Amino acid sequence: MVGDEFELETVEEGMDILLYLDNRRKYLVKVKKDEVFHTHKGFIRLNTIIGKPYGAKIKSSMGVDFYVLKPTLKDYLLKLARKTQIIYPKDMGLILLHSNIKPGSRVVEGGTGSGALAGMLAAYVKPDGKVYSYETREEFIKIAEKNLKRMGVLDFVLLKKADLTQGIEEKDVDVVVLDMPTPWLVVSHAYKALKNTGIFASFSPTIEQVIKTVETMKNVGFTDLETVECWVRKYQVEAGRTRPETLTIAHTGYLTFGRKILV
Amino acid sequence: MVGDEFELETVEEGMDILLYLDNRRKYLVKVKKDEVFHTHKGFIRLNTIIGKPYGAKIKSSMGVDFYVLKPTLKDYLLKLARKTQIIYPKDMGLILLHSNIKPGSRVVEGGTGSGALAGMLAAYVKPDGKVYSYETREEFIKIAEKNLKRMGVLDFVLLKKADLTQGIEEKDVDVVVLDMPTPWLVVSHAYKALKNTGIFASFSPTIEQVIKTVETMKNVGFTDLETVECWVRKYQVEAGRTRPETLTIAHTGYLTFGRKILV
Amino acid sequence: MVGDEFELETVEEGMDILLYLDNRRKYLVKVKKDEVFHTHKGFIRLNTIIGKPYGAKIKSSMGVDFYVLKPTLKDYLLKLARKTQIIYPKDMGLILLHSNIKPGSRVVEGGTGSGALAGMLAAYVKPDGKVYSYETREEFIKIAEKNLKRMGVLDFVLLKKADLTQGIEEKDVDVVVLDMPTPWLVVSHAYKALKNTGIFASFSPTIEQVIKTVETMKNVGFTDLETVECWVRKYQVEAGRTRPETLTIAHTGYLTFGRKILV
Amino acid sequence: MVGDEFELETVEEGMDILLYLDNRRKYLVKVKKDEVFHTHKGFIRLNTIIGKPYGAKIKSSMGVDFYVLKPTLKDYLLKLARKTQIIYPKDMGLILLHSNIKPGSRVVEGGTGSGALAGMLAAYVKPDGKVYSYETREEFIKIAEKNLKRMGVLDFVLLKKADLTQGIEEKDVDVVVLDMPTPWLVVSHAYKALKNTGIFASFSPTIEQVIKTVETMKNVGFTDLETVECWVRKYQVEAGRTRPETLTIAHTGYLTFGRKILV
Repeated sequence: MVGDEFELETVEEGMDILLYLDNRRKYLVKVKKDEVFHTHKGFIRLNTIIGKPYGAKIKSSMGVDFYVLKPTLKDYLLKLARKTQIIYPKDMGLILLHSNIKPGSRVVEGGTGSGALAGMLAAYVKPDGKVYSYETREEFIKIAEKNLKRMGVLDFVLLKKADLTQGIEEKDVDVVVLDMPTPWLVVSHAYKALKNTGIFASFSPTIEQVIKTVETMKNVGFTDLETVECWVRKYQVEAGRTRPETLTIAHTGYLTFGRKILV
Repeated sequence: MVGDEFELETVEEGMDILLYLDNRRKYLVKVKKDEVFHTHKGFIRLNTIIGKPYGAKIKSSMGVDFYVLKPTLKDYLLKLARKTQIIYPKDMGLILLHSNIKPGSRVVEGGTGSGALAGMLAAYVKPDGKVYSYETREEFIKIAEKNLKRMGVLDFVLLKKADLTQGIEEKDVDVVVLDMPTPWLVVSHAYKALKNTGIFASFSPTIEQVIKTVETMKNVGFTDLETVECWVRKYQVEAGRTRPETLTIAHTGYLTFGRKILV
Repeated sequence: MVGDEFELETVEEGMDILLYLDNRRKYLVKVKKDEVFHTHKGFIRLNTIIGKPYGAKIKSSMGVDFYVLKPTLKDYLLKLARKTQIIYPKDMGLILLHSNIKPGSRVVEGGTGSGALAGMLAAYVKPDGKVYSYETREEFIKIAEKNLKRMGVLDFVLLKKADLTQGIEEKDVDVVVLDMPTPWLVVSHAYKALKNTGIFASFSPTIEQVIKTVETMKNVGFTDLETVECWVRKYQVEAGRTRPETLTIAHTGYLTFGRKILV
Repeated sequence: MVGDEFELETVEEGMDILLYLDNRRKYLVKVKKDEVFHTHKGFIRLNTIIGKPYGAKIKSSMGVDFYVLKPTLKDYLLKLARKTQIIYPKDMGLILLHSNIKPGSRVVEGGTGSGALAGMLAAYVKPDGKVYSYETREEFIKIAEKNLKRMGVLDFVLLKKADLTQGIEEKDVDVVVLDMPTPWLVVSHAYKALKNTGIFASFSPTIEQVIKTVETMKNVGFTDLETVECWVRKYQVEAGRTRPETLTIAHTGYLTFGRKILV
């Protein structure tokens, strides 16, 4: 139909692509010369993709159509995270909005884990902001470094081997975002590190974590306390057959937010 | 406790503050000299706030405590929108993440309405991106201009008196985001305006709008089609009395996304 | 159209009717001779309803149409309950199904409150079952007696002025259903009162109540423990304008169930 | 602990039991002499269960503990239904409450399918009510007959080989409940068959089915129209680790209800 009126962005060697088969089968692939990507629907020679415009349709060896898409932040978020600690787009969106994270923000974050959360935050605080990401386990710092490089945001993250429950070195930060087992042990450190307009945010799977954290926040000096949970439900949309999908993720974690007050 | 180790940001005349009483009563107030802000819990002379640090507690004439907070993007989103067309933070977060909107993005948006959605998008595409906001009704363009100025993002939005169903003038844009009654009439225009890596996003309250839009998207040339809805539920967190709040907003709208493919 | 091929059931003096204006305005009214029912849409002389068939349309003094419907159990459940302690149809349905309550069941229930829960249970254990309803507050026993009489199920309920936390007098019962502040104090009494195939069910608004109750159930001798919560969302269905309603009840309470095992 | 103060109900040959391993693994088993039940946790000789009281713990050949529970209606509902057409307890509960189905009700139901819905309804209209269950496919009538016999409610169901879209033979019924692909084709037949206090109920997976059915109901003569959907979310309750389960069923179907009016 169209798309040819202006210059098309093309896939170059070394870039990431998202190979799209259908809504459930999408693969994040680095395009290396002479390599072959195998799927249960046949293989694809990556050479054939180099130089192709994003949005192009290609056929696997079994004749199945795939689309070559350009990975989004969400794709990286979903593909790079370790399964057990993933922050879903729904929660990531709420963290951004409720924490007022935006271009220029300075954010302390932890634990780093796979770096997916740090990478997302970095992508939104660019180009003038910074993410200070704490992690005690050396092996995760290495994984995170690799992932942040792949997402193109390593320059905006400072990876630190340190324990947030022992203190925060930064001062005057805009936001502290936690995804760790004992967030209540970080509340008073966060209070000290935050600007007087700063926001504390925490993601926790269990309600007991939430209760401990909120009770600590009340004592330390936060107001506008909010704990929320969020669901997303996908739809099958097709004239005459429209309906929500049968299964969904019913729980990832509770999100807690508060704003620093002077006490 | 703390907060005095580094310079505190203080309220200056002409700035906005969020006067916080409790989770249900928060007021967005412009601090004008010699003005008085009236609440059902007594009045507050705004002069007494000038020079105060954000986070400070002040007393109303009736002796009730309020906190002086710095407004976040979310506060503007909730306070500036016309009630009938508000995009909630939960939906705004999903739009950002699913549309890959980030610093530097060029986004076509419409209808402008109160400008709240345009303002949020502008805050995230800063400093190098741009929002092209379409609106046919002159009176809303004026309201939006005022609101965008107040949010400090007017430089990043181009307000246009034009009808998206008649075409899109921009080329090579990253995203088209719609919050309008007939999004299906914009799908083919969006296709032409989008980069070959671009994303189409639409917010609609009714399922019939969704079905028409998705069927059109399939015909025009989009893949990775996703329609979702999102709920957020707040909690009352208090040791021994923790429970979700009784009432919630059960529906705002359906969100539909798709990525352009070359056809 | 039809409805006249067989005998119509008509309203007699002393009966209850549900006067239906729209989905939000339905009134449970006892039809007394010479009385007048006032609404904001005009008044209705109840004499004019006597002898009318259910399903008939009548006009108020302001010319507004009302329908004369026959009250269902759900109507009584929603209209007779004190607001603070209502068991909603969604929860009532789960209690029936998860507790295996059916015609013939013998059920211990408490606290009685307005009697709405006892009345519903009675309507389902009829004609051979029985509900033993515990309440410590004399004034509620009187209210409940009146309500149960109105629902026509008083014969199937034994109202008892007694405290469930002090013990259960019945033996060999099929189910114990609790809607009271300290269900964990009743767990071991329930265990003793239940048949070896019996089920314990509890409704609680807070998560701390749930945790205490479930931990006690594990210790005392129950298995197949399930705690669930349930939401219902209403739709506005109208071709071209179909959508969920905006507001909903997001929380009533958690439901906990377990089956007695021999220990 | 207790349970021995009154006579225990014991398992007899030919009865059904629910072999309970954990919340995800429960098996509905008919206890036949000399048969062996195999699980991935070892086998169980059914002879060893005969004479045991319900609630007893038994060990498999691999030494794993199972509990011998008495099947509830819910167990039959979940185990006997064909997967594709199951009515979940949450929906079943709403159907009972919103349709005012109770002991003594006369209910027309279709399509019969596996008979699970008919069986549940029968269990609640007992002992004086009746379910008239319509099915066009001979093979399902046979399956249903077997299942209804197993549930012990065959006497309360009349299985009919007939097509509801062609008409309803019964007159003066309390409720018509549909779980079939084209409910809108049955609306006017249902109107004729229902008492003047009667209720129409329909379960449909897609929103298009709902829209067609509701529009037809408005035209034919029903009021108090309600379309709802219902979710249930399970919790993992354990002091210090309490949280909702990760996955849930996000959609089974929409439920539509209306009451007959005289037109």
